[in-house]
Amino acid sequence: MAAGDGIGSAEHLAGRRLPVVVDAMGGDRAPREIVAGARRAADELGVEVTLVGPPDQVGDTEGLALWPCAEVIDMHEDPGRAVRTKKDSSLVRAAEAVRDGRACAMVSAGNTGATMASALLRMGRVRGIARPAIATPIPRPGVAPSLLLDSGANAVCTPAMLVQFARMGAACATARYGTEHPSVALLSIGEEPGKGTPLVKETAELLADVPGLRFLGNVEGRDLLGGPADVVVTDGFTGNVVLKALEGSLRFMLDAVLGVFATDEATRRAGDVLLPFLAPLAAELDPDNTGGAVLLGVDGVCVISHGSSSAQAIVSAVRVALDAVDSGLVSRVRELAATDR
Amino acid sequence: MAAGDGIGSAEHLAGRRLPVVVDAMGGDRAPREIVAGARRAADELGVEVTLVGPPDQVGDTEGLALWPCAEVIDMHEDPGRAVRTKKDSSLVRAAEAVRDGRACAMVSAGNTGATMASALLRMGRVRGIARPAIATPIPRPGVAPSLLLDSGANAVCTPAMLVQFARMGAACATARYGTEHPSVALLSIGEEPGKGTPLVKETAELLADVPGLRFLGNVEGRDLLGGPADVVVTDGFTGNVVLKALEGSLRFMLDAVLGVFATDEATRRAGDVLLPFLAPLAAELDPDNTGGAVLLGVDGVCVISHGSSSAQAIVSAVRVALDAVDSGLVSRVRELAATDR
Repeated sequence: MAAGDGIGSAEHLAGRRLPVVVDAMGGDRAPREIVAGARRAADELGVEVTLVGPPDQVGDTEGLALWPCAEVIDMHEDPGRAVRTKKDSSLVRAAEAVRDGRACAMVSAGNTGATMASALLRMGRVRGIARPAIATPIPRPGVAPSLLLDSGANAVCTPAMLVQFARMGAACATARYGTEHPSVALLSIGEEPGKGTPLVKETAELLADVPGLRFLGNVEGRDLLGGPADVVVTDGFTGNVVLKALEGSLRFMLDAVLGVFATDEATRRAGDVLLPFLAPLAAELDPDNTGGAVLLGVDGVCVISHGSSSAQAIVSAVRVALDAVDSGLVSRVRELAATDR
Repeated sequence: MAAGDGIGSAEHLAGRRLPVVVDAMGGDRAPREIVAGARRAADELGVEVTLVGPPDQVGDTEGLALWPCAEVIDMHEDPGRAVRTKKDSSLVRAAEAVRDGRACAMVSAGNTGATMASALLRMGRVRGIARPAIATPIPRPGVAPSLLLDSGANAVCTPAMLVQFARMGAACATARYGTEHPSVALLSIGEEPGKGTPLVKETAELLADVPGLRFLGNVEGRDLLGGPADVVVTDGFTGNVVLKALEGSLRFMLDAVLGVFATDEATRRAGDVLLPFLAPLAAELDPDNTGGAVLLGVDGVCVISHGSSSAQAIVSAVRVALDAVDSGLVSRVRELAATDR
């Protein structure tokens, strides 16, 4: 049994999971919100959560176990160099805990590049996977989110990489949301197969021929939010730009509507009537609730929460990590990679 | 005096502009909404507007002059082939009218690719401009929109192309909104210059060295709506995907809020209180009001309105065309291209 894939492991069969390890120092609001989220995850999800970080910087662990380390990788450090030089950092130690079978999954809201690099260098790639990719949930009110990948791991991609992303994304949609035969679409600038970059055109031809993959064809940017596809595939540059554009516009609109509510006494009263109805929508669109992105293709479970993660975001990310562990996501990726060889 | 740049021309000095030519058959709602918009533009803006299209298909011109032609290029035809084979189409004839000095500008809500191809093949490129680009306004409530380019003309770009786009975009921001020394940013996946594709990294280095250009550095997708830059530069693939994602998410949020208003009697009353305050915001974000995109780099004024354009969108597009003509936008592009040689 490889590390980081709890299903079928001795611990799992005995009804006891390995702990989820949370990088206590990752994120703009670390360590307080991260520790608070880890504590709540342990309580609400009934799971063992262990922190990793320098004890003097983490401070109160709220009763959680802390694996001590000496260093922290900052949000803006160069990922490759940081992981190479800071061998006793919370991120590197978290990835090693998964690799060594002391944790079933790692969660971090820290430097995304360094999280990827730690997972990649310490857990390694799944054999046959060319490059890991980040799968980020895009909310679709009323149905399961769609997964956008790659949303930032690889700025430059090849058609073969995008095909693997499509297959890993489909496996993740099944593991995470129970979607049977998830539909997959390719992000482009027109639905016609002749539109787009050479990368898109070649990838579309390859995707149409992947056995067992339900390929819908190309979708446009407007089809992301509430669109038809369970999985949307693109290169990591486009994926990251469009993901942040969506987050920015939802935030913008929410702020604008709340600003209107605050205009005067009458609008405040009207806002009070509407808020209970708007709140579930806002919650469904809130990145703190969609639960973090999964780094697919590494040989263990690694969940990346956004940099401004609140305690609630950490609870969601731990839940995502558990879903990935319990559904055997890494095994599924291993299986699909095996058929690529 | 070259065609399509009214300022300084005999007509302009005599206080009389050439007409704006509107493709009566372009857009999902052609010809009725287009003709109605052209009529309103003529009345509201006090400008001569001429239609072009097959008389039997256009029908009632609401008193506007119609230049007859025999063919129409459909929304989903292959642009290059359509422009080559349909020489007597409304789009091709509109571009020829600008080229031949019979119109000061063309406006179309039709097939975007065919509009570009018509303008490019009939008006030609400005000498020294490698490739034309589409500059689309992104609303920024309270201040002038920022211009996103290229938003779809060139799926694959080089650093030198993006530098020209930056300079043309700055010229357009000055011409269209009177912005002095417009700020320019490069769309990427992190503000650090080391992030992004090779295209982005090379372009950032070049932009930092362009004399007179106020380059802010890289911005992320979340900085598009209400962001700091007057001009945001990217390749046409990323630009188109992100533009449509923004349009889709604004539409999604607007529909969601209106849906909440319609819940029951109490929410309807609350909605009635709030609508007068939300309406100006919605209007400011509505693509029908931001006025269409300008095709920069062709030797004449060409304004592209979105495919679902209403009459209001056509009024806005004609206004944009007039601003471009009166401000000498094409001359400004000629001047900047001359310094590139």
